Amino acid sequence: MNPEFIQPFIKATVDVLHTMASTQFEVGEIRRKDNGQLYGTVTGLIGLAGENELGNMCISFDQPAILAIVNRMIGEEHLTINQDIVDAVGELTNIICGAAKKELEDIGIQIDMATPTVFLGSELKLSQMAPNSTFSIPCRTNDGSFVIEVNLDKVAKRKS
Amino acid sequence: MNPEFIQPFIKATVDVLHTMASTQFEVGEIRRKDNGQLYGTVTGLIGLAGENELGNMCISFDQPAILAIVNRMIGEEHLTINQDIVDAVGELTNIICGAAKKELEDIGIQIDMATPTVFLGSELKLSQMAPNSTFSIPCRTNDGSFVIEVNLDKVAKRKS
Repeated sequence: MNPEFIQPFIKATVDVLHTMASTQFEVGEIRRKDNGQLYGTVTGLIGLAGENELGNMCISFDQPAILAIVNRMIGEEHLTINQDIVDAVGELTNIICGAAKKELEDIGIQIDMATPTVFLGSELKLSQMAPNSTFSIPCRTNDGSFVIEVNLDKVAKRKS
Repeated sequence: MNPEFIQPFIKATVDVLHTMASTQFEVGEIRRKDNGQLYGTVTGLIGLAGENELGNMCISFDQPAILAIVNRMIGEEHLTINQDIVDAVGELTNIICGAAKKELEDIGIQIDMATPTVFLGSELKLSQMAPNSTFSIPCRTNDGSFVIEVNLDKVAKRKS
């Protein structure tokens, strides 16, 4: 994966969480994903399919982080991860990915987005079929943490 | 979701499991997904993104079913779900979805596929953001069972 593809996802997440949930966060060291456990207890995943690039992105939140984000977003006080939180994670994943898609268009990358799915479970292992093409971006808010994972590569490379 | 979209995924699964793993199966009653627990312990998921339709498909196997399928496919005798099995689930998901894509093209539906991801975990809950558009297809082999879930709908409908 071209590391140039990471920045649009970070910028999109910064913009969306700031605008929609008054949330700022620190970005930690970007790593190649070692194909192991997902970070959080709730994870939004969305497939990316373009004529020239394909992959997926996911964003995995720990409970304190996502409760604070969604409670600020919708002005409520949820104390556990319920269906409202799950729905909000799906929406956030979709909106962040949509914003990243626009950023990618600015550097000449055209991708279409599939529909988001949300996974619940803290012992969850997600295997990417192209682990070397996945980058993991740890992020820390004042309330908790989340990890963005981006996997995007040339179609030709995947087919070879 | 147009129920006409289900048949291509069933036909693709029948063809691919027959050809690649000498596996036949019975198809049970097709239901609308109630947005709960995933059926199996290992689940392949792939996003679908077209100009007019978008969604995703997943295929969730119990351990006896997937071990028998993959052992026949690769001529080995794996007794537990290890990385070889996970990789094979990713491949199978990709090949089945590719075959369904061709079937869909025959009825005028153009979709692009994202890359597959594979989830491990038997207490896994997957929420679709459009639960009413998801169909669940239970399938039974001689060794165990699996469930195909298909979620595909008009882009316009999703955006409305």
